[in-house]
Amino acid sequence: MAYKVVNTPQIRVDSLAKVTGQEKYAADYSFPGMLCGKVLRAKFPHALISKVDVQEALKLKGVHAVLIAQDIPGSKKIGAVIEDQDVLSGEKVRFLGDGVALVAAESMEIAERALELIKVEYEPLPGVFDPLEALKPGAPLLHPEKGDNIVNHHRVRKGDVKEGFARSEIVLEREYRTQFVEHSYIEPEACIAIPAPDLKGVQVLGSIQNPFSTRKMVARALNLELNRVQITQTTLGGSFGGKDEVMYIMAARAAMLALKTGKPVKMVNTREESFIESYKRHPYYMHYKVGATRDGKLQAMEIYIVADAGAYASQSPFVTWRSTVQATGPYEIPHVKTDVLAVYTNNTYTGAMRGFGSPQVIFAVESLMDELAHELNMDPVELRRINIFRQGSITATGQKLDDHVVSLEEVMDKALSAINYREKIGQKSEGPIKRGVGFAISFRGCSLGAEGLDYANALISAQADGSIYISTGVSDNGGGLKTVLSQIVAEELGVPISDITVNVVDTAFVPDGGPAVASRSTIMGGNATRNAAISLREKLVEAMASLWGVPHEEIGVGEGKFFHIKNPDLSLSFSKVVEEALRMGIAPLAYGTYVAPQVTWDEELGQGNAYFTYVYGCQAAEVEVDLETGKVRVLRVAAAHDLGKAINLKTAEGQIYGGVAMGLGYGLLEEVEIQEGYTRTLNFDTYLVPTSCDVPQVTPIIVENPDPYGPYGAKSLGEPTNELLAAAIANAIFQACGRRIRELPLTPERVLLGRSLREKKGRRASEIK
Amino acid sequence: MAYKVVNTPQIRVDSLAKVTGQEKYAADYSFPGMLCGKVLRAKFPHALISKVDVQEALKLKGVHAVLIAQDIPGSKKIGAVIEDQDVLSGEKVRFLGDGVALVAAESMEIAERALELIKVEYEPLPGVFDPLEALKPGAPLLHPEKGDNIVNHHRVRKGDVKEGFARSEIVLEREYRTQFVEHSYIEPEACIAIPAPDLKGVQVLGSIQNPFSTRKMVARALNLELNRVQITQTTLGGSFGGKDEVMYIMAARAAMLALKTGKPVKMVNTREESFIESYKRHPYYMHYKVGATRDGKLQAMEIYIVADAGAYASQSPFVTWRSTVQATGPYEIPHVKTDVLAVYTNNTYTGAMRGFGSPQVIFAVESLMDELAHELNMDPVELRRINIFRQGSITATGQKLDDHVVSLEEVMDKALSAINYREKIGQKSEGPIKRGVGFAISFRGCSLGAEGLDYANALISAQADGSIYISTGVSDNGGGLKTVLSQIVAEELGVPISDITVNVVDTAFVPDGGPAVASRSTIMGGNATRNAAISLREKLVEAMASLWGVPHEEIGVGEGKFFHIKNPDLSLSFSKVVEEALRMGIAPLAYGTYVAPQVTWDEELGQGNAYFTYVYGCQAAEVEVDLETGKVRVLRVAAAHDLGKAINLKTAEGQIYGGVAMGLGYGLLEEVEIQEGYTRTLNFDTYLVPTSCDVPQVTPIIVENPDPYGPYGAKSLGEPTNELLAAAIANAIFQACGRRIRELPLTPERVLLGRSLREKKGRRASEIK
Repeated sequence: MAYKVVNTPQIRVDSLAKVTGQEKYAADYSFPGMLCGKVLRAKFPHALISKVDVQEALKLKGVHAVLIAQDIPGSKKIGAVIEDQDVLSGEKVRFLGDGVALVAAESMEIAERALELIKVEYEPLPGVFDPLEALKPGAPLLHPEKGDNIVNHHRVRKGDVKEGFARSEIVLEREYRTQFVEHSYIEPEACIAIPAPDLKGVQVLGSIQNPFSTRKMVARALNLELNRVQITQTTLGGSFGGKDEVMYIMAARAAMLALKTGKPVKMVNTREESFIESYKRHPYYMHYKVGATRDGKLQAMEIYIVADAGAYASQSPFVTWRSTVQATGPYEIPHVKTDVLAVYTNNTYTGAMRGFGSPQVIFAVESLMDELAHELNMDPVELRRINIFRQGSITATGQKLDDHVVSLEEVMDKALSAINYREKIGQKSEGPIKRGVGFAISFRGCSLGAEGLDYANALISAQADGSIYISTGVSDNGGGLKTVLSQIVAEELGVPISDITVNVVDTAFVPDGGPAVASRSTIMGGNATRNAAISLREKLVEAMASLWGVPHEEIGVGEGKFFHIKNPDLSLSFSKVVEEALRMGIAPLAYGTYVAPQVTWDEELGQGNAYFTYVYGCQAAEVEVDLETGKVRVLRVAAAHDLGKAINLKTAEGQIYGGVAMGLGYGLLEEVEIQEGYTRTLNFDTYLVPTSCDVPQVTPIIVENPDPYGPYGAKSLGEPTNELLAAAIANAIFQACGRRIRELPLTPERVLLGRSLREKKGRRASEIK
Repeated sequence: MAYKVVNTPQIRVDSLAKVTGQEKYAADYSFPGMLCGKVLRAKFPHALISKVDVQEALKLKGVHAVLIAQDIPGSKKIGAVIEDQDVLSGEKVRFLGDGVALVAAESMEIAERALELIKVEYEPLPGVFDPLEALKPGAPLLHPEKGDNIVNHHRVRKGDVKEGFARSEIVLEREYRTQFVEHSYIEPEACIAIPAPDLKGVQVLGSIQNPFSTRKMVARALNLELNRVQITQTTLGGSFGGKDEVMYIMAARAAMLALKTGKPVKMVNTREESFIESYKRHPYYMHYKVGATRDGKLQAMEIYIVADAGAYASQSPFVTWRSTVQATGPYEIPHVKTDVLAVYTNNTYTGAMRGFGSPQVIFAVESLMDELAHELNMDPVELRRINIFRQGSITATGQKLDDHVVSLEEVMDKALSAINYREKIGQKSEGPIKRGVGFAISFRGCSLGAEGLDYANALISAQADGSIYISTGVSDNGGGLKTVLSQIVAEELGVPISDITVNVVDTAFVPDGGPAVASRSTIMGGNATRNAAISLREKLVEAMASLWGVPHEEIGVGEGKFFHIKNPDLSLSFSKVVEEALRMGIAPLAYGTYVAPQVTWDEELGQGNAYFTYVYGCQAAEVEVDLETGKVRVLRVAAAHDLGKAINLKTAEGQIYGGVAMGLGYGLLEEVEIQEGYTRTLNFDTYLVPTSCDVPQVTPIIVENPDPYGPYGAKSLGEPTNELLAAAIANAIFQACGRRIRELPLTPERVLLGRSLREKKGRRASEIK
């Protein structure tokens, strides 16, 4: 089917305001009488609070309120999955980002002085900073009422790994580790809470990724009904999964201060505060054991993963669940045993970040596959060809892949061909600078999967002049969703994109669309919006059929017009159609719902149809390794992603460029250093993200195998682009110089040592299992 | 049928925020970088503009923009009915409130200094300030391109008045006049326009009665699509019909300044500016000729009315159309000839005000009926009983009143009985202070009638905790609609009112509900909201039926629960029902539409079913007239209004108290004096509104005859309460002292003279017809 607007390259509808600096972000808002809210954070990563004295702070001129835990009107703990996170800590602090008191004052300076005047008496507790240590008996407990430090433990049990290893002719055991990673959004956390007497509640405007989840948590903390808490999303200056829980907490705190003082209260984290308080991508300890026959056929895989959840659960149960489903990589293996634990420590808590548990396991399993190929003296491509998922394959969780195109071979071929893999694989270079190519492949479940109820709603309203509003709770967090949704409506109603506006996400007005996470915006929000557009079109077609006295099947729609296909004289512009509908008393609005196809999950055995569809990708990298300095330079990247169908060819490429750049940082540079609970990298002077000089030439390859469930066949792209490069680079480094590095980031030190720095400590999986 | 929430007294949901001073009004809003917008108004009521020089003003430090007519990006003229009103006047000014230039500056002081620096050269033109003069050949023309000063001329032709008068045994000819009246809202006009780069347009927050009409006009002036202009209604500090066109103009001007400067621009009229610029209630010249037989049976009525439209049409065509339909009063008369003209003059323009063309004609026709009764030596009650509409009566426009209860006799009996009319009618008093009672009755068409397309939409969205949002474009302009709509939803869904929030009217989010005018909010908005609530209930009932596996007819709803009527174990709270629906992928939202029943109108003959239903009312007043000072004191008022069904018994009474107080001001005190185009009453020191000392004891009598079309039978109440008292007082004065005053307000001077002051000039209808 030929589309007019969908599947074309379109300039983002929000680009002009952004590139001209006109766009307003949360910190740009200001309201009369607004106060500055600040947080007094923990002094120790683990300590009991014996006393908090706020009297001196309250006396300071210009201070309007000082709040502590006992002032929380509602639930003192909140959390999207497990309610274990303190809105303010009253009894003990569990990480350095915990808040002990809040101040609202007339200026930031006064607020900061007030923080200094708050006296907190602590009884420091021994902390635990390594999740493997946290699992040991006798380890300090973060949440003693739970009895241990385990947030969750997911399992997959398929076949019998003992039998599998027994049948194997080669068995490899390897450990891989990844680091804490910062989302590095340009805009740190910010919000403004405004008392809303007409709502008998509060409004919070802010850089909030998921307004509906945030509303739920703010309402819990404030003991208000949902319709008394209005969350209005301001334009996000980046999120990447990072503006969820941290914003629940900030929004709840600002709202408390606003209701206490009766004034608007703005809270903006400095970059340093953001580094200390905001959750990170989980560091993973991963122990892999793989068995294969000499001809390369995988027989068994046993996986033991421990994720550092930090002080609070946040999204850990869901993040590690995705890891659990995808831990084996896209390979058919008869016998699989996977255990994935998330464990509390006194580190900064960890949660959702672009990739959501996949970049870690892909780094491990794709390194492992290359290691296995090396041990088997086999071409890594060949090893994969033998084992990858194909049409009808059964995944580790027992899901048969038969209702969409399993395109692993296609993406692999296209990426490798684009980077000239065959020519380059054998290249030799003289001198200390070595070149190599490497690649990684992945499969990835789309949307939430069995994590939770997966639905989206959208509302479309045509105005009297034919211009259109789209309202949906699935928000554009910077990825280009506004343009994608506009294209979908333009396609279905035959109107230009410029006639369409996507409303801001305001919980008072737009229908809940479920969260803008899990690369689900296009597939879920797109389907809901498309359904709404189709429903509006049908309503208007009926109106025109009745107006013209012709069967509705004979009404055509396109090029800004509704027309009778048999009689060109019967034709009205879209705006006239809306006018006629209004005249007939037909409201030119419609909503659409999309509920994801059924998924299943058996938590005991880790078996089920975990996601209703999957995407496939391959990224290949060519690198240069300087053996004298250890520096790795990525020369080029080819990234082939099957996204089902690209709605916007331009933003689809944009996702690939962005995902590759972030993947480069993950692979080579980025690490939040947390030493005994104290964050050492507090800004971008020590936390290094790639600059434009670091980012190589990228060849984006969009592979389209339309999905039966996606709108126009579209699936996901946002996260897959960010999950592959670290593994591809590690494999390329090995190809270049024979050094296998099993720990991220792939720093010069590690390249020079040729192994993981932490391995020196000699912890082995066997010791701790 | 017994209702649980509807038809009970309920405290207004918005009362607490208002009485505690927490509510925010337009002028209370402020935004960073906000500029002050000011208007340079006309120096003459009628003049050509030969030159406008803004150079000096532009040079003033702190001035960001000075705009004149040629800077208007779109249509230079706007108007709801006729586009004849200048957004800014470029060629000529037609009344003193016209704007010639706009300034945006960093403070009000700078803006005002800048206005002084703008040089405007005028060529004054002769003006016309009396609509009767304006009709004469050779009168100065306001809009020369139209050829005359007639805005509109409505007619009713029923039977043959010549024949009617021939059959009459008594014929009376009388002239009545009414004055310019100010809406006297507490809050003068105010708005803030904010550039909205993400919309590629502008947002205007303001004290705007009809956000959707305002949006249309701002979009016209700015040459933007409707979805690029977001109008957000702030809480209105009163409107009474007065914040329509004047706010189109102010919003368009503020928006122009905001887009020009790239900054928020606030415009707030001072009270003096408001008196000069804002439109008023129309002064009417009314010539009535009535014929009857000696037994009091009306035979013919000939009516000639000229309304002063001022400089622009505004709502004059609709205001005078309502007068046309209702001019004969609620009396069956076989022969009727009515001509109602609205005429341009160089006075302040006139438009919608509570009553909308009815207070004037009711003052005339109800005075006339008492005069006729006096001439016939008949009891005014008796005369009315003989002639009033009853079930099946035919109105002057040929409409048969047969599908709702015609309750004139009932309201009349109840009001007269409450004021002890029978006892008091004959009372005599010694000395200069005389007492008298009088009354007036009316019929009034509900909603827009044949004025225009009459529909409303509403959207209801239940949140996950069972709390509910109502969104509708029919706005609460202070009359209590939020409470009424909350009651309706509470009734239909069986939830408490406190769980419900009514959203602000924001054109980006809420469905257009048609204007909040014509006392249509309850009947139209209520019906749409009720339909939405029923639709949501049915959706949820279906969900529960499917969940429980029972027929949906067996699901009961009430007391916060959905339950199986046969099995009390199957019962879920409303919030759990919503949760289950969400789990089933059912969006817990629904919209409702209500389209008014068909009306008809033949403009040529003035025949048709003008409104789909009518309300009936009677107000009776007891007065004391001091013959030495001329002062009239109203001692008590009984007001009986058939409103179909009261949704909120408390706010219904509130409407009566408010309407009576306003009616008292109209009858006794209020007049905007405009001399040769110059407004002389510029504030409440010279323009007198009733104080609490002036307002008498009021007995509100709610009469309920449920209407087949209204929600729960509810019709209208807002305006009927404001249309009767002036006539009732005039009749009571006559009863007290035999002085018949045919001109409003009934000031001491007029009482002392015993006649209209203007009659001295001796203009008679015969001279000008």
